Amino acid sequence: MAERFRTLALLGKINHDDVNQTLTSLYQFLKANQYEVLLEERLSRQITCDQQNFMDVVELGRRADLAIVVGGDGHMLGAARVFARYGVPVIGVNRGNLGFLTDLSPTEFHEPLLQVLQGQYKTEHRFLLEASIYRHGELKSSNTALNEAVLHPGKIAHMIDYSVFIDNSFVFSQRADGMIISTPTGSTAYALSAGGPILTPQLNVMTLVPMFPHTLSCRPIVIDAQSQVKLVISAENQDELLHVSCDGHVNLSVQPGDEIIIQQAAHKLTLLHPKEYDYFNVLRTKLGWSNQLY
Amino acid sequence: MAERFRTLALLGKINHDDVNQTLTSLYQFLKANQYEVLLEERLSRQITCDQQNFMDVVELGRRADLAIVVGGDGHMLGAARVFARYGVPVIGVNRGNLGFLTDLSPTEFHEPLLQVLQGQYKTEHRFLLEASIYRHGELKSSNTALNEAVLHPGKIAHMIDYSVFIDNSFVFSQRADGMIISTPTGSTAYALSAGGPILTPQLNVMTLVPMFPHTLSCRPIVIDAQSQVKLVISAENQDELLHVSCDGHVNLSVQPGDEIIIQQAAHKLTLLHPKEYDYFNVLRTKLGWSNQLY
Amino acid sequence: MAERFRTLALLGKINHDDVNQTLTSLYQFLKANQYEVLLEERLSRQITCDQQNFMDVVELGRRADLAIVVGGDGHMLGAARVFARYGVPVIGVNRGNLGFLTDLSPTEFHEPLLQVLQGQYKTEHRFLLEASIYRHGELKSSNTALNEAVLHPGKIAHMIDYSVFIDNSFVFSQRADGMIISTPTGSTAYALSAGGPILTPQLNVMTLVPMFPHTLSCRPIVIDAQSQVKLVISAENQDELLHVSCDGHVNLSVQPGDEIIIQQAAHKLTLLHPKEYDYFNVLRTKLGWSNQLY
Amino acid sequence: MAERFRTLALLGKINHDDVNQTLTSLYQFLKANQYEVLLEERLSRQITCDQQNFMDVVELGRRADLAIVVGGDGHMLGAARVFARYGVPVIGVNRGNLGFLTDLSPTEFHEPLLQVLQGQYKTEHRFLLEASIYRHGELKSSNTALNEAVLHPGKIAHMIDYSVFIDNSFVFSQRADGMIISTPTGSTAYALSAGGPILTPQLNVMTLVPMFPHTLSCRPIVIDAQSQVKLVISAENQDELLHVSCDGHVNLSVQPGDEIIIQQAAHKLTLLHPKEYDYFNVLRTKLGWSNQLY
Repeated sequence: MAERFRTLALLGKINHDDVNQTLTSLYQFLKANQYEVLLEERLSRQITCDQQNFMDVVELGRRADLAIVVGGDGHMLGAARVFARYGVPVIGVNRGNLGFLTDLSPTEFHEPLLQVLQGQYKTEHRFLLEASIYRHGELKSSNTALNEAVLHPGKIAHMIDYSVFIDNSFVFSQRADGMIISTPTGSTAYALSAGGPILTPQLNVMTLVPMFPHTLSCRPIVIDAQSQVKLVISAENQDELLHVSCDGHVNLSVQPGDEIIIQQAAHKLTLLHPKEYDYFNVLRTKLGWSNQLY
Repeated sequence: MAERFRTLALLGKINHDDVNQTLTSLYQFLKANQYEVLLEERLSRQITCDQQNFMDVVELGRRADLAIVVGGDGHMLGAARVFARYGVPVIGVNRGNLGFLTDLSPTEFHEPLLQVLQGQYKTEHRFLLEASIYRHGELKSSNTALNEAVLHPGKIAHMIDYSVFIDNSFVFSQRADGMIISTPTGSTAYALSAGGPILTPQLNVMTLVPMFPHTLSCRPIVIDAQSQVKLVISAENQDELLHVSCDGHVNLSVQPGDEIIIQQAAHKLTLLHPKEYDYFNVLRTKLGWSNQLY
Repeated sequence: MAERFRTLALLGKINHDDVNQTLTSLYQFLKANQYEVLLEERLSRQITCDQQNFMDVVELGRRADLAIVVGGDGHMLGAARVFARYGVPVIGVNRGNLGFLTDLSPTEFHEPLLQVLQGQYKTEHRFLLEASIYRHGELKSSNTALNEAVLHPGKIAHMIDYSVFIDNSFVFSQRADGMIISTPTGSTAYALSAGGPILTPQLNVMTLVPMFPHTLSCRPIVIDAQSQVKLVISAENQDELLHVSCDGHVNLSVQPGDEIIIQQAAHKLTLLHPKEYDYFNVLRTKLGWSNQLY
Repeated sequence: MAERFRTLALLGKINHDDVNQTLTSLYQFLKANQYEVLLEERLSRQITCDQQNFMDVVELGRRADLAIVVGGDGHMLGAARVFARYGVPVIGVNRGNLGFLTDLSPTEFHEPLLQVLQGQYKTEHRFLLEASIYRHGELKSSNTALNEAVLHPGKIAHMIDYSVFIDNSFVFSQRADGMIISTPTGSTAYALSAGGPILTPQLNVMTLVPMFPHTLSCRPIVIDAQSQVKLVISAENQDELLHVSCDGHVNLSVQPGDEIIIQQAAHKLTLLHPKEYDYFNVLRTKLGWSNQLY
């Protein structure tokens, strides 16, 4: 096991002082410990290293045994969507605040990281969603999301009419600002702001959370992650252009009449944690559960 | 009192078959009852009448004793913002579904409307909000809203950082998808979808409802409608262009660093209802309060 | 398959006119179709039949191939807790309103029921929870719940201090009016009123929904139904007597210092539905999803 | 103004070490500053003082110029219900955690309290509710509440059927676990846990918050505090005994068929704050508004 991680990919948010410092410090630490370190090409201005060690993320995915990502949860999401495809496990170093996905401290990572590299870690498999847009039965675009896929209008403050089908069974037609389909990983992010439940990470479920539905009776629904969700966009929508956003970054264009298929992606993210990682401890800290109101 | 309403303004959604039918029917009924009827100019294709009786809404506001608006609540909002300025009372004929603002039936309006015209009605004064955008201390734009003013990003799925001040006291800084400031009239519309409370129409309060705040501890706040709300848009926002939307129609452009002042507008809407109007009955019907879950 | 159901158990709410009528009508229909019908003993005043055919519910569980329960969802819950133990499938005839668990119409049950009896049905397995109270490490009492187990104070308006553990990991300490632990079956009942998500029936998860927690940051949590939930009641609680209520009927006494273990029960309920049963259709109808607010 | 407060009433939670210490320290400080100090009789075991200076709370209400209450918000509520009746202003010394009603620090009260006593303070008038129970048209009992009146069942987990009238207009019939009617003062307490909005303290409104209603479409309603709320308890309720609880302490018995009238009480509480008191700062601190989720 100790031999498993020889080639390490190092990535991070660029042009960010605190991240730079952590990246440099990490790089030196890993080299000092005899690891082969590959770097995301955009880091070439920040870290002095053999030119051949810089490469794009896809190449990192092909060659690395483990990816170490420095940044917030947002940065992890982008890395996750790539590394999941190559089966490369990922571990996160947070930028400062505790993150749900980034366990390691930006300054005191040395001991815990070494333990992980030596085989002392917890492994989690987090599934991703795949969102695909079909127009007249033809696939127009698709992407994956570790947190959530969100249907929303291209213009501001326009409501959307759509119908929801689960495994081809009609569920409801709705008028709303949009719809969030979230994984357990995403359940503590945008879906939580929208009133969705917390789903423990290992559950094989997803949750549908309507955004400001024009009815009082709609509630978040949790369904089997093996199910296929289909959103049929009513041809009646005023907007000519809607969007499906994956993890708040990638946007797929949607038109009235399109069908959006959301289902579990083929590849899962392998997420590593230090041995002492405790999901509920992260929840308590992030969500401030010790604060009593009265 | 019976003499009060001699000159009536007639308005409605255009190019809509059902509305057309109601407008024509209303026009004939009012003429048959000897009222002077002025028409919104856009209705000239639909209703045959002396050309001089067609005029724009502002002119209707100057000359009419009472405005009769045919359409949904959305159409009423637009009319309300104009007629409030001229102190002309408004009564609504709904397009089909019961509306919160449109009491009269599109087919059986005759008897109740005649009673209203003869002085048998209930009067309500509904206040409007005025939203004003200041850049470097200078007023850039402003508009009024009967339902709500909404701060939201110009691009989709971008969060906003802003600070809220009430009567110049700092309330909180927040990261959210936006913020709704609603009147009691708007409390059963968008603010309700966003989790805000129902405010009975005569209350002199407004409510601040955050949209998907990035914290679990934020809740709708109800404040005095005499208070001034100031939203200071953080200069840190990524988007170059944000918006304040009034009643979902008028959009004011906002830039990072701008200040948005929201306060009660100078003029109120005078809304007329038939004698038998019952606010709680409308609530019960619209919100489906008779449905029992178990 | 058509041979499977020869001996049928008939149960229903007693001393209720509408239910009586349905029970009598069902009894005659089943006899006319040559089925052996066993009856809950409490029905002996209402239905004329051989005395030996009346027996208690446990005996019905031992002898019947299928139980037909007439009543609301509440009545089904009681029957379910018994028949699950004996592996006897159950089908419900509702008392009037559509129920989540009772599919058959009280007056037009004939054709659909005959199809079920002839082997045309859908089968669902719904798990139950088992709640056990431990005092000083010793089991004091236990019971099962198809919908939910609820921890709450014996006296009114007293809050409870307790800690929650999942699979022996500490989750949080909380001050609240109580805590609901719900199955997917119960997710559309009390847990929904308390703000919990809808869980589709086949999911192997449960949800923890705090009741009026004294913090704003607590949210419903969905966890694996294989997990063990432990509630440790703080010795500090003022009330001398708390309760765990199963399906709102059975009450287990709890004292400060006790531990409550909630986990999946050994036996599942087998629930039969007519072929055309559609869970989402029941949801739409019961929850009034067609009502649009604006 | 400096002369206004000569005779001070001192009250506090008894048999509580931290409170004792603060009370003793306060007593000595006030005596040293030449104030006449009257003490609640239950403090006679803790504070050594002339016997004639101990008296019951009602007598304190008759004789004091200002009441100083040491304890949590709960303790303030009890004092408030008495002192409001006598028009005696109240100031709170909190027991440790910041309270919504108790501004002064238990250890560093000296300087701010002296300023208050010398006339440097902010004055707030907080209204109370009066809840009255009528049986067959006859008043059976009544009490006042600074925070909220709560209708709930005497037994656990029993739902209640009741109808709500506002100023004798029917609002809705509902099946729920109960109903909270809250003042602005109470809006950050139990009503907030139940999903009610925050109402700024000076508003002349109250809010009706249903507790776990058996419908998805019911929402908190904010109404004029001059309105009269009437809850008519259905004669159909199974429980023979229900309760109306005032501020979580006083319980009024209610039977099926009773009418509960809730309206503004005749007397208001005069609450004093140090000059630097800032309501929104208390909100931010108590509700943890600086915590960002992501």
